[in-house]
Amino acid sequence: MKIRQLFDYDTWTYTYLLWDETTKEAAVIDSVLEKVDRDEQHIKELGLNVKYLLETHIHADHITGAGPLRKRMGGQLVVHKNSGSECADILAVDGDVFKLGDQEIHVLHTPGHTNNDITYQIEGAVFTGDTLMVRDCGRTDFQLGDNKAMYHSLTEILFKLPEDTMVFPAHDYKGFSQSTIGEEKQFNHRAGSNKSYEDFSTIMDNLNLPNPKRIDIAVPGNMKCGDLD
Amino acid sequence: MKIRQLFDYDTWTYTYLLWDETTKEAAVIDSVLEKVDRDEQHIKELGLNVKYLLETHIHADHITGAGPLRKRMGGQLVVHKNSGSECADILAVDGDVFKLGDQEIHVLHTPGHTNNDITYQIEGAVFTGDTLMVRDCGRTDFQLGDNKAMYHSLTEILFKLPEDTMVFPAHDYKGFSQSTIGEEKQFNHRAGSNKSYEDFSTIMDNLNLPNPKRIDIAVPGNMKCGDLD
Repeated sequence: MKIRQLFDYDTWTYTYLLWDETTKEAAVIDSVLEKVDRDEQHIKELGLNVKYLLETHIHADHITGAGPLRKRMGGQLVVHKNSGSECADILAVDGDVFKLGDQEIHVLHTPGHTNNDITYQIEGAVFTGDTLMVRDCGRTDFQLGDNKAMYHSLTEILFKLPEDTMVFPAHDYKGFSQSTIGEEKQFNHRAGSNKSYEDFSTIMDNLNLPNPKRIDIAVPGNMKCGDLD
Repeated sequence: MKIRQLFDYDTWTYTYLLWDETTKEAAVIDSVLEKVDRDEQHIKELGLNVKYLLETHIHADHITGAGPLRKRMGGQLVVHKNSGSECADILAVDGDVFKLGDQEIHVLHTPGHTNNDITYQIEGAVFTGDTLMVRDCGRTDFQLGDNKAMYHSLTEILFKLPEDTMVFPAHDYKGFSQSTIGEEKQFNHRAGSNKSYEDFSTIMDNLNLPNPKRIDIAVPGNMKCGDLD
Protein backbone atom coordinates (compact mmCIF):
# COMPACT_ATOMS: atom_id res chain seq x y z
CA MET A 1 0.00 0.00 0.00
CA LYS A 2 1.34 3.40 -0.92
CA ILE A 3 0.97 6.15 1.69
CA ARG A 4 1.10 9.90 1.13
CA GLN A 5 0.86 12.28 4.11
CA LEU A 6 -0.62 15.75 3.60
CA PHE A 7 -0.84 18.55 6.13
CA ASP A 8 -3.21 21.42 6.89
CA TYR A 9 -1.22 24.16 8.61
CA ASP A 10 -4.29 25.95 9.99
CA THR A 11 -5.64 23.05 12.01
CA TRP A 12 -2.47 20.92 12.28
CA THR A 13 -4.34 18.06 10.63
CA TYR A 14 -2.77 15.19 8.71
CA THR A 15 -4.70 13.86 5.75
CA TYR A 16 -3.57 10.57 4.23
CA LEU A 17 -3.89 9.13 0.77
CA LEU A 18 -3.59 5.36 0.61
CA TRP A 19 -3.57 3.49 -2.64
CA ASP A 20 -2.96 0.15 -4.22
CA GLU A 21 -0.23 0.57 -6.82
CA THR A 22 -1.69 -2.08 -9.14
CA THR A 23 -5.33 -1.03 -9.32
CA LYS A 24 -4.87 2.64 -8.31
CA GLU A 25 -7.85 2.24 -5.98
CA ALA A 26 -7.46 4.81 -3.21
CA ALA A 27 -8.73 5.88 0.19
CA VAL A 28 -8.54 9.35 1.70
CA ILE A 29 -8.31 9.49 5.49
CA ASP A 30 -9.43 12.69 7.26
CA SER A 31 -9.55 15.26 4.51
CA VAL A 32 -9.97 18.94 5.43
CA LEU A 33 -12.65 21.13 3.84
CA GLU A 34 -10.28 23.99 3.00
CA LYS A 35 -7.86 21.58 1.30
CA VAL A 36 -10.32 19.86 -1.06
CA ASP A 37 -8.96 21.65 -4.16
CA ARG A 38 -5.39 20.66 -3.31
CA ASP A 39 -6.37 17.08 -2.59
CA GLU A 40 -8.50 16.72 -5.71
CA GLN A 41 -5.66 17.94 -7.92
CA HIS A 42 -3.12 15.71 -6.19
CA ILE A 43 -5.37 12.65 -6.50
CA LYS A 44 -5.85 13.36 -10.20
CA GLU A 45 -2.12 13.81 -10.77
CA LEU A 46 -1.44 10.51 -9.06
CA GLY A 47 -4.05 8.86 -11.32
CA LEU A 48 -6.04 7.45 -8.41
CA ASN A 49 -9.66 6.32 -8.21
CA VAL A 50 -11.18 7.22 -4.86
CA LYS A 51 -12.99 4.22 -3.44
CA TYR A 52 -13.30 5.26 0.21
CA LEU A 53 -13.37 8.49 2.19
CA LEU A 54 -12.46 7.34 5.68
CA GLU A 55 -13.04 9.45 8.77
CA THR A 56 -11.27 8.56 12.01
CA HIS A 57 -14.02 10.33 14.00
CA ILE A 58 -16.34 13.33 14.08
CA HIS A 59 -13.74 16.07 14.45
CA ALA A 60 -14.18 19.09 16.71
CA ASP A 61 -11.34 21.23 15.33
CA HIS A 62 -11.92 21.26 11.59
CA ILE A 63 -14.60 20.43 9.05
CA THR A 64 -14.05 17.36 6.91
CA GLY A 65 -13.64 17.61 3.15
CA ALA A 66 -15.02 14.10 2.69
CA GLY A 67 -18.50 15.13 1.51
CA PRO A 68 -17.24 17.61 -1.10
CA LEU A 69 -14.57 15.14 -2.27
CA ARG A 70 -17.26 12.46 -2.62
CA LYS A 71 -19.28 14.79 -4.84
CA ARG A 72 -16.27 15.56 -7.02
CA MET A 73 -14.49 12.20 -7.17
CA GLY A 74 -16.89 9.51 -5.98
CA GLY A 75 -16.17 6.99 -3.25
CA GLN A 76 -18.02 5.75 -0.19
CA LEU A 77 -17.84 7.84 2.95
CA VAL A 78 -17.09 5.87 6.13
CA VAL A 79 -17.70 6.98 9.73
CA HIS A 80 -18.08 4.87 12.86
CA LYS A 81 -21.62 3.78 13.64
CA ASN A 82 -21.59 5.53 17.03
CA SER A 83 -21.34 8.90 15.29
CA GLY A 84 -24.99 8.71 14.29
CA SER A 85 -24.02 10.24 10.95
CA GLU A 86 -26.83 10.42 8.42
CA CYS A 87 -24.60 11.45 5.50
CA ALA A 88 -22.10 8.57 5.56
CA ASP A 89 -22.45 5.69 3.10
CA ILE A 90 -21.08 3.16 5.56
CA LEU A 91 -21.43 3.21 9.35
CA ALA A 92 -18.44 1.09 10.27
CA VAL A 93 -17.90 -1.11 13.31
CA ASP A 94 -14.91 -2.92 14.75
CA GLY A 95 -13.73 -5.71 12.46
CA ASP A 96 -14.97 -4.23 9.19
CA VAL A 97 -12.56 -4.57 6.29
CA PHE A 98 -12.28 -2.33 3.22
CA LYS A 99 -10.28 -3.44 0.21
CA LEU A 100 -8.14 -1.46 -2.21
CA GLY A 101 -7.19 -4.02 -4.85
CA ASP A 102 -5.86 -6.95 -2.83
CA GLN A 103 -4.87 -4.73 0.07
CA GLU A 104 -6.98 -4.60 3.22
CA ILE A 105 -7.86 -1.78 5.57
CA HIS A 106 -9.14 -3.04 8.92
CA VAL A 107 -11.36 -1.09 11.27
CA LEU A 108 -10.33 -1.05 14.93
CA HIS A 109 -12.78 0.73 17.25
CA THR A 110 -10.49 2.75 19.54
CA PRO A 111 -12.77 5.14 21.47
CA GLY A 112 -11.71 7.55 24.19
CA HIS A 113 -11.30 10.88 22.44
CA THR A 114 -14.91 10.42 21.28
CA ASN A 115 -17.21 7.41 21.30
CA ASN A 116 -16.70 6.95 17.54
CA ASP A 117 -12.92 6.77 17.04
CA ILE A 118 -11.64 4.41 14.39
CA THR A 119 -8.03 3.33 13.90
CA TYR A 120 -7.55 2.17 10.33
CA GLN A 121 -5.01 -0.65 10.15
CA ILE A 122 -3.11 -1.78 7.08
CA GLU A 123 -0.18 -4.15 6.92
CA GLY A 124 2.61 -2.56 8.94
CA ALA A 125 0.84 0.70 9.80
CA VAL A 126 -2.04 2.20 11.74
CA PHE A 127 -3.81 5.52 11.20
CA THR A 128 -4.77 6.34 14.73
CA GLY A 129 -6.78 9.55 14.44
CA ASP A 130 -6.91 11.41 17.74
CA THR A 131 -6.56 8.26 19.81
CA LEU A 132 -2.79 7.74 19.65
CA MET A 133 -0.64 10.71 18.64
CA VAL A 134 3.17 10.97 18.71
CA ARG A 135 4.10 10.88 22.44
CA ASP A 136 0.56 12.06 23.07
CA CYS A 137 -3.12 11.13 22.83
CA GLY A 138 -6.34 12.99 22.12
CA ARG A 139 -8.12 14.86 24.88
CA THR A 140 -11.08 13.18 26.57
CA ASP A 141 -13.06 16.10 27.94
CA PHE A 142 -15.80 16.57 25.34
CA GLN A 143 -17.76 14.67 22.65
CA LEU A 144 -18.29 11.68 24.92
CA GLY A 145 -14.56 11.40 25.51
CA ASP A 146 -13.72 8.99 28.30
CA ASN A 147 -10.49 8.31 30.18
CA LYS A 148 -11.23 4.64 30.77
CA ALA A 149 -12.04 4.01 27.12
CA MET A 150 -8.93 5.92 25.99
CA TYR A 151 -6.66 4.02 28.36
CA HIS A 152 -8.13 0.73 27.14
CA SER A 153 -7.78 1.71 23.48
CA LEU A 154 -4.15 2.74 23.97
CA THR A 155 -2.87 0.01 26.24
CA GLU A 156 -5.09 -2.97 25.39
CA ILE A 157 -5.61 -2.47 21.65
CA LEU A 158 -2.91 -0.30 20.08
CA PHE A 159 0.03 -1.16 22.35
CA LYS A 160 -0.66 -4.86 21.70
CA LEU A 161 0.14 -4.47 18.00
CA PRO A 162 3.62 -5.45 16.72
CA GLU A 163 6.21 -2.95 17.97
CA ASP A 164 7.44 -2.04 14.50
CA THR A 165 3.95 -1.01 13.36
CA MET A 166 4.15 2.54 12.01
CA VAL A 167 1.82 5.05 13.68
CA PHE A 168 0.32 7.88 11.62
CA PRO A 169 -1.71 10.33 13.73
CA ALA A 170 -4.47 12.77 12.72
CA HIS A 171 -2.61 15.72 14.24
CA ASP A 172 0.73 16.82 15.52
CA TYR A 173 1.71 20.07 17.18
CA LYS A 174 5.49 19.60 17.56
CA GLY A 175 6.54 18.69 14.03
CA PHE A 176 6.43 14.90 14.33
CA SER A 177 5.01 13.05 11.34
CA GLN A 178 4.96 9.44 12.52
CA SER A 179 6.01 7.05 15.23
CA THR A 180 5.93 3.32 15.96
CA ILE A 181 3.95 1.28 18.46
CA GLY A 182 7.22 0.29 20.18
CA GLU A 183 8.20 3.92 20.68
CA GLU A 184 4.79 4.90 22.01
CA LYS A 185 4.63 1.98 24.44
CA GLN A 186 7.90 3.21 25.88
CA PHE A 187 7.84 6.98 25.45
CA ASN A 188 4.23 8.14 25.17
CA HIS A 189 3.99 10.90 27.77
CA ARG A 190 0.48 10.00 28.86
CA ALA A 191 0.16 6.24 28.62
CA GLY A 192 3.67 4.87 27.90
CA SER A 193 6.10 3.09 30.26
CA ASN A 194 3.32 0.97 31.75
CA LYS A 195 1.66 4.00 33.38
CA SER A 196 -1.25 2.93 35.58
CA TYR A 197 -4.78 3.98 34.78
CA GLU A 198 -4.73 6.21 37.86
CA ASP A 199 -1.62 8.06 36.64
CA PHE A 200 -3.07 8.36 33.13
CA SER A 201 -6.37 9.63 34.43
CA THR A 202 -4.71 12.24 36.65
CA ILE A 203 -2.79 13.57 33.64
CA MET A 204 -5.91 13.71 31.48
CA ASP A 205 -8.00 15.41 34.19
CA ASN A 206 -5.43 18.18 34.59
CA LEU A 207 -4.74 19.23 31.00
CA ASN A 208 -6.82 22.40 31.40
CA LEU A 209 -7.09 22.93 27.66
CA PRO A 210 -9.36 25.59 26.15
CA ASN A 211 -12.16 24.30 23.93
CA PRO A 212 -11.20 24.04 20.23
CA LYS A 213 -11.99 27.39 18.62
CA ARG A 214 -14.21 25.92 15.94
CA ILE A 215 -16.02 23.22 17.92
CA ASP A 216 -19.45 24.87 17.55
CA ILE A 217 -19.03 24.97 13.79
CA ALA A 218 -16.95 21.84 13.25
CA VAL A 219 -19.13 19.23 14.96
CA PRO A 220 -22.38 20.14 13.16
CA GLY A 221 -20.40 20.62 9.93
CA ASN A 222 -18.97 17.14 10.26
CA MET A 223 -22.41 15.67 11.01
CA LYS A 224 -23.20 16.95 7.50
CA CYS A 225 -19.97 15.36 6.14
CA GLY A 226 -18.70 18.83 5.27
CA ASP A 227 -21.54 19.42 2.77
CA LEU A 228 -22.48 22.79 4.25
CA ASP A 229 -25.11 23.93 1.82
CA MET B 1 17.59 2.99 5.61
CA LYS B 2 14.98 4.29 8.04
CA ILE B 3 13.65 7.80 7.41
CA ARG B 4 11.86 10.08 9.86
CA GLN B 5 10.55 13.46 8.72
CA LEU B 6 10.32 16.32 11.23
CA PHE B 7 8.85 19.76 10.66
CA ASP B 8 9.48 23.28 11.91
CA TYR B 9 6.22 25.22 11.68
CA ASP B 10 7.88 28.65 11.94
CA THR B 11 10.11 28.32 8.89
CA TRP B 12 8.29 25.50 7.07
CA THR B 13 11.48 23.45 7.17
CA TYR B 14 11.70 19.67 7.00
CA THR B 15 14.45 18.03 9.01
CA TYR B 16 15.20 14.37 8.34
CA LEU B 17 16.65 11.63 10.50
CA LEU B 18 18.15 8.75 8.55
CA TRP B 19 19.48 5.68 10.24
CA ASP B 20 20.71 2.19 9.66
CA GLU B 21 18.51 -0.18 11.66
CA THR B 22 21.36 -2.63 12.37
CA THR B 23 24.09 -0.29 13.62
CA LYS B 24 21.84 2.62 14.68
CA GLU B 25 24.28 4.98 12.96
CA ALA B 26 22.36 8.10 11.99
CA ALA B 27 22.48 11.26 9.94
CA VAL B 28 20.49 14.45 10.52
CA ILE B 29 19.67 16.48 7.42
CA ASP B 30 18.90 20.20 7.83
CA SER B 31 18.22 20.59 11.52
CA VAL B 32 16.75 23.87 12.79
CA LEU B 33 18.32 25.80 15.69
CA GLU B 34 15.04 26.27 17.58
CA LYS B 35 14.30 22.55 17.34
CA VAL B 36 17.57 21.19 18.72
CA ASP B 37 16.02 20.15 22.05
CA ARG B 38 13.22 18.27 20.29
CA ASP B 39 15.64 16.58 17.91
CA GLU B 40 18.12 15.62 20.63
CA GLN B 41 15.39 13.98 22.71
CA HIS B 42 13.95 12.18 19.69
CA ILE B 43 17.37 10.88 18.63
CA LYS B 44 18.01 9.62 22.16
CA GLU B 45 14.63 7.90 22.34
CA LEU B 46 15.31 6.17 19.04
CA GLY B 47 18.66 5.01 20.41
CA LEU B 48 20.65 6.50 17.52
CA ASN B 49 24.31 7.49 17.28
CA VAL B 50 24.73 10.63 15.20
CA LYS B 51 27.50 10.12 12.68
CA TYR B 52 26.76 12.97 10.27
CA LEU B 53 25.03 16.34 10.35
CA LEU B 54 24.25 16.99 6.71
CA GLU B 55 23.33 20.41 5.36
CA THR B 56 21.73 20.70 1.93
CA HIS B 57 23.02 24.29 1.63
CA ILE B 58 23.66 27.52 3.51
CA HIS B 59 20.07 28.45 4.32
CA ALA B 60 18.72 31.99 4.13
CA ASP B 61 15.46 31.47 5.99
CA HIS B 62 16.49 29.74 9.21
CA ILE B 63 19.59 29.02 11.26
CA THR B 64 20.83 25.45 11.32
CA GLY B 65 20.90 23.41 14.50
CA ALA B 66 23.81 21.33 13.20
CA GLY B 67 26.54 23.02 15.25
CA PRO B 68 24.67 22.79 18.57
CA LEU B 69 23.65 19.18 17.81
CA ARG B 70 27.30 18.34 17.05
CA LYS B 71 28.30 19.72 20.46
CA ARG B 72 25.64 17.71 22.23
CA MET B 73 25.66 14.44 20.29
CA GLY B 74 28.83 14.28 18.21
CA GLY B 75 28.97 13.65 14.49
CA GLN B 76 30.71 15.28 11.54
CA LEU B 77 29.13 18.36 10.02
CA VAL B 78 28.93 18.34 6.23
CA VAL B 79 28.42 21.34 3.91
CA HIS B 80 29.27 21.73 0.24
CA LYS B 81 32.77 23.01 -0.49
CA ASN B 82 31.41 26.06 -2.35
CA SER B 83 29.89 27.37 0.87
CA GLY B 84 33.35 28.39 2.12
CA SER B 85 32.25 27.22 5.57
CA GLU B 86 35.01 27.28 8.19
CA CYS B 87 33.01 25.42 10.84
CA ALA B 88 32.15 22.27 8.87
CA ASP B 89 34.12 19.07 9.42
CA ILE B 90 33.74 17.97 5.81
CA LEU B 91 33.48 20.22 2.74
CA ALA B 92 31.72 17.82 0.40
CA VAL B 93 31.80 17.66 -3.39
CA ASP B 94 29.81 15.76 -5.98
CA GLY B 95 30.41 12.02 -5.76
CA ASP B 96 31.29 11.89 -2.07
CA VAL B 97 29.76 8.96 -0.19
CA PHE B 98 28.94 8.77 3.50
CA LYS B 99 28.13 5.44 5.13
CA LEU B 100 25.70 4.52 7.89
CA GLY B 101 26.45 0.89 8.56
CA ASP B 102 26.32 -0.72 5.13
CA GLN B 103 24.02 1.95 3.76
CA GLU B 104 25.35 4.69 1.53
CA ILE B 105 24.48 8.38 1.22
CA HIS B 106 25.69 9.86 -2.05
CA VAL B 107 26.38 13.56 -2.63
CA LEU B 108 24.92 15.08 -5.80
CA HIS B 109 25.90 18.69 -6.41
CA THR B 110 22.63 20.30 -7.56
CA PRO B 111 23.24 24.07 -7.55
CA GLY B 112 20.82 26.76 -8.66
CA HIS B 113 19.17 27.97 -5.48
CA THR B 114 22.70 28.69 -4.23
CA ASN B 115 26.10 27.63 -5.52
CA ASN B 116 26.43 25.06 -2.74
CA ASP B 117 23.27 22.92 -2.96
CA ILE B 118 23.61 19.22 -2.23
CA THR B 119 21.04 16.54 -2.93
CA TYR B 120 21.68 13.57 -0.66
CA GLN B 121 20.78 10.32 -2.38
CA ILE B 122 20.10 6.98 -0.72
CA GLU B 123 18.66 3.87 -2.29
CA GLY B 124 15.19 4.80 -3.53
CA ALA B 125 15.10 8.36 -2.23
CA VAL B 126 16.65 11.81 -2.60
CA PHE B 127 16.72 14.67 -0.12
CA THR B 128 16.68 17.59 -2.47
CA GLY B 129 17.00 20.63 -0.21
CA ASP B 130 15.76 23.78 -1.93
CA THR B 131 16.60 22.50 -5.40
CA LEU B 132 13.56 20.32 -6.09
CA MET B 133 10.48 20.87 -3.98
CA VAL B 134 7.00 19.33 -4.44
CA ARG B 135 5.69 20.84 -7.71
CA ASP B 136 8.15 23.64 -7.09
CA CYS B 137 11.83 24.57 -6.85
CA GLY B 138 13.89 26.99 -4.79
CA ARG B 139 14.19 30.64 -5.83
CA THR B 140 17.30 31.71 -7.69
CA ASP B 141 17.49 35.43 -6.97
CA PHE B 142 20.05 35.63 -4.15
CA GLN B 143 23.03 33.76 -2.67
CA LEU B 144 24.55 33.11 -6.11
CA GLY B 145 21.33 31.50 -7.28
CA ASP B 146 21.30 30.90 -11.01
CA ASN B 147 18.51 29.94 -13.40
CA LYS B 148 20.77 28.01 -15.76
CA ALA B 149 22.32 25.98 -12.96
CA MET B 150 18.87 25.28 -11.45
CA TYR B 151 17.41 24.18 -14.77
CA HIS B 152 20.38 21.87 -15.31
CA SER B 153 20.16 20.43 -11.79
CA LEU B 154 16.45 19.75 -12.18
CA THR B 155 16.25 18.45 -15.72
CA GLU B 156 19.70 16.91 -16.29
CA ILE B 157 20.46 15.51 -12.85
CA LEU B 158 17.34 14.94 -10.77
CA PHE B 159 14.81 14.19 -13.52
CA LYS B 160 17.23 11.56 -14.89
CA LEU B 161 16.90 9.47 -11.72
CA PRO B 162 14.49 6.47 -11.68
CA GLU B 163 10.90 7.72 -11.76
CA ASP B 164 9.89 5.92 -8.56
CA THR B 165 12.65 7.65 -6.56
CA MET B 166 11.03 9.32 -3.55
CA VAL B 167 11.65 13.07 -3.25
CA PHE B 168 11.97 14.65 0.19
CA PRO B 169 12.30 18.45 0.06
CA ALA B 170 13.71 20.91 2.61
CA HIS B 171 10.53 22.96 2.66
CA ASP B 172 6.91 22.87 1.71
CA TYR B 173 4.30 25.60 1.92
CA LYS B 174 1.16 23.73 0.82
CA GLY B 175 1.17 20.69 3.07
CA PHE B 176 2.98 18.24 0.82
CA SER B 177 5.51 15.98 2.51
CA GLN B 178 7.04 14.10 -0.39
CA SER B 179 6.85 13.37 -4.08
CA THR B 180 8.53 11.18 -6.68
CA ILE B 181 10.84 12.00 -9.57
CA GLY B 182 8.20 10.72 -12.00
CA GLU B 183 5.59 13.09 -10.61
CA GLU B 184 7.91 16.08 -10.70
CA LYS B 185 9.04 15.39 -14.25
CA GLN B 186 5.40 15.53 -15.25
CA PHE B 187 3.78 17.99 -12.87
CA ASN B 188 6.45 20.32 -11.49
CA HIS B 189 4.99 23.79 -12.11
CA ARG B 190 8.32 25.35 -12.99
CA ALA B 191 10.38 22.72 -14.78
CA GLY B 192 8.07 19.75 -15.43
CA SER B 193 6.40 18.63 -18.67
CA ASN B 194 9.58 19.23 -20.68
CA LYS B 195 9.41 23.00 -20.15
CA SER B 196 12.11 24.80 -22.12
CA TYR B 197 14.86 26.74 -20.38
CA GLU B 198 13.32 29.95 -21.72
CA ASP B 199 9.93 29.16 -20.18
CA PHE B 200 11.58 28.16 -16.90
CA SER B 201 13.70 31.28 -16.82
CA THR B 202 10.71 33.54 -17.48
CA ILE B 203 8.85 31.96 -14.55
CA MET B 204 11.85 32.35 -12.24
CA ASP B 205 12.48 35.96 -13.24
CA ASN B 206 8.90 36.96 -12.46
CA LEU B 207 8.34 35.44 -9.03
CA ASN B 208 8.65 38.86 -7.34
CA LEU B 209 9.17 37.33 -3.91
CA PRO B 210 10.15 39.44 -0.90
CA ASN B 211 13.52 38.62 0.65
CA PRO B 212 13.33 36.01 3.44
CA LYS B 213 12.70 37.87 6.70
CA ARG B 214 15.72 36.41 8.45
CA ILE B 215 18.26 36.41 5.63
CA ASP B 216 20.55 38.96 7.31
CA ILE B 217 20.69 36.82 10.44
CA ALA B 218 20.39 33.37 8.89
CA VAL B 219 23.24 33.43 6.40
CA PRO B 220 25.94 34.61 8.84
CA GLY B 221 24.45 32.31 11.50
CA ASN B 222 24.77 29.36 9.14
CA MET B 223 28.33 30.32 8.24
CA LYS B 224 28.94 29.70 11.97
CA CYS B 225 27.06 26.36 11.75
CA GLY B 226 24.46 27.75 14.15
CA ASP B 227 26.97 28.10 17.01
CA LEU B 228 25.94 31.62 17.93
CA ASP B 229 27.19 31.62 21.54
